[in-house]
Amino acid sequence: MKLNIALLAGDGIGPEVIDQAVKVSDAVAAKFGHEISWTPALTGAAAIDAVGEPYPDETHEICMAADAVLFGAIGLPRFDNDPSAKVRPEQGLLKMRKALGLFANVRPTFTFPSLIDKSPLKRERIEGTDLVFLRELTGGIYFGKRGREDNDNTAYDTCTYTRAEVERLARKGFDMALQRSKKLCCVDKANVLETSRLWRETVQRLEKEYPEVEVSYELVDAVAMRLVQWPNSYDVLITENLFGDILTDEASVISGSMGLMPSASLGEKTSLFEPIHGSYPQAAGKDIANPLATVLSAAMMFETAFGLQDEADAIRAVVNRSLAEGVVTEDLAEGGKAYKTSEVGDWLAKNI
Amino acid sequence: MKLNIALLAGDGIGPEVIDQAVKVSDAVAAKFGHEISWTPALTGAAAIDAVGEPYPDETHEICMAADAVLFGAIGLPRFDNDPSAKVRPEQGLLKMRKALGLFANVRPTFTFPSLIDKSPLKRERIEGTDLVFLRELTGGIYFGKRGREDNDNTAYDTCTYTRAEVERLARKGFDMALQRSKKLCCVDKANVLETSRLWRETVQRLEKEYPEVEVSYELVDAVAMRLVQWPNSYDVLITENLFGDILTDEASVISGSMGLMPSASLGEKTSLFEPIHGSYPQAAGKDIANPLATVLSAAMMFETAFGLQDEADAIRAVVNRSLAEGVVTEDLAEGGKAYKTSEVGDWLAKNI
Ligand SMILES: CC(C)[C@H](C(=O)O)[C@@H](O)C(=O)O
Ligand SMILES: CC(C)[C@H](C(=O)O)[C@@H](O)C(=O)O
Repeated sequence: MKLNIALLAGDGIGPEVIDQAVKVSDAVAAKFGHEISWTPALTGAAAIDAVGEPYPDETHEICMAADAVLFGAIGLPRFDNDPSAKVRPEQGLLKMRKALGLFANVRPTFTFPSLIDKSPLKRERIEGTDLVFLRELTGGIYFGKRGREDNDNTAYDTCTYTRAEVERLARKGFDMALQRSKKLCCVDKANVLETSRLWRETVQRLEKEYPEVEVSYELVDAVAMRLVQWPNSYDVLITENLFGDILTDEASVISGSMGLMPSASLGEKTSLFEPIHGSYPQAAGKDIANPLATVLSAAMMFETAFGLQDEADAIRAVVNRSLAEGVVTEDLAEGGKAYKTSEVGDWLAKNI
Repeated sequence: MKLNIALLAGDGIGPEVIDQAVKVSDAVAAKFGHEISWTPALTGAAAIDAVGEPYPDETHEICMAADAVLFGAIGLPRFDNDPSAKVRPEQGLLKMRKALGLFANVRPTFTFPSLIDKSPLKRERIEGTDLVFLRELTGGIYFGKRGREDNDNTAYDTCTYTRAEVERLARKGFDMALQRSKKLCCVDKANVLETSRLWRETVQRLEKEYPEVEVSYELVDAVAMRLVQWPNSYDVLITENLFGDILTDEASVISGSMGLMPSASLGEKTSLFEPIHGSYPQAAGKDIANPLATVLSAAMMFETAFGLQDEADAIRAVVNRSLAEGVVTEDLAEGGKAYKTSEVGDWLAKNI
């Protein structure tokens, strides 16, 4: 099979972790007889510096022409504490999500048997955790009208959802639940927000079409608690954009390292795959960042964008072996030998 | 001293836990020579059933005339999965916060030495945790314009903040930081939201007036992670209404039981004290709910509303003794004897 993949490395540790995912993907392609054509494109601060724009048209065309996008991370500290910055790397990310119609962000959270004792949570609380968030990614308060009023003394943001936006995300959630344990949790704040009431109504209507799926409705504050108390009581969770941002980051801690959790963003056309961690600028250029979240995002890409299950499984298997054999970066080394980012990538590619 | 306290028991377990806080408060008042006059008033579902309105005018008048309000909990399941319900218990809570001008919700999170092993988090992650959230409580998306449009197919909620609203909350945060470790963390989503940028700008300006306080700015998704990873790295955190709702519930898990964390809501006039847990309807009427969060809210009341520090310390000391001696409700009993709600209250009152 010929795989055309757009490669958006981005900022900070983005290029370093992307490099390892490329090595591993090429190795798996060679093993299974595929040919990957990688097309690099600019995004984030790197794109702002080069062309003054965090998601340039040329990058968008490359993404649209590709079968899938593999994405690193974006953001640099020089933009962070400057509320007046006119262009921000994050705008590129949001523009890209919208332009590619990536409305469903799939964020699994699971534990690795060999890492379970590195979690801040106790073993008995997390054993068996295997949940997946479907976060709505192109609506809500991220994309509503915002601005200043009253002589710059008032700021506002608007959260908007249409029934159609909720329904297409919810349907993906029901379909995913059917393939898993047939349990779906809709997370909202329906005791306060009108948009949340629309979410709940819409999901309640869909329940009739999916009689096999058992649906529960939980408030976002309650879920923020239970995710720490009993994460393994959840299976598929669907939620709106901002709640999904907060809760998936919270949930990622369960696995024991931020550097481990992958994600997929699905939509109308090309899908995108990225680690859930950020650009971690303090570590940039040091060859120390954990590449596994990006490598596992590549596994999701083989599986979801190309339907290549064996290839995805091969990547996951070699990742598990590297963890079991202690071929890990410093965040997981705990006194043992800390491998470099590039060494972990080389080892994975060789052992696939 | 004569203390006039409005007593809003509310729904579910509210009346039961409030009863214990009354017993303990009366005992501490007797010991220190104070006289408490309690004025009960209706709120929540109880008030809807009685007068069709969750925060009746009469209740408001009682609160305004009091020196402090002690509040139980509100909400009943029959309102929960009914998106069309016209009047909801929660509306009473929001109306009350607004009417009493309770703009600053103080939510401490701490560990009890004798309970530390009941936490879902590992001991080394939480030892020494003693943080306090200041949650803005009368603004943001809770109180912005909301509604439906486009033939009921679109819903919206508006998040609005004025500089003045941010500043009065932030000043309380700086003052609190000065009295503690002089560290303040401002939690926002300034990489996306305009209201968050206003928060950050306003806090940045105030920094000059408080040169002794070291301020950090963190994104809400990052804080949702770090609260589970290293809660003891935080001291005073300030944030807007919705983020505060989610993060304080998440943080409450650290202590090992939801039934333990108190809160104070401060504002323009009368202050209000309430447990952070909800009305827990499944347990209502069974005399099994943990009353400690409400009892500790009464301690915050003695301290904050009346400046009675010794009285507050006496309550905290007897609570610690009850935990150490295993005089606890079933949520903390773990195989040992489970005391009734009322028995714990009696024990505390007797041993103060
Ligand atoms: C960088 C930021 C805009 C982004 C978001 O909030 O969506 C990030 O936190 C994420 O979760 O992908
Ligand atoms: C009941 C609900 C409206 C309320 C809130 O969201 O503020 C509660 O969760 C709280 O935190 O006091």
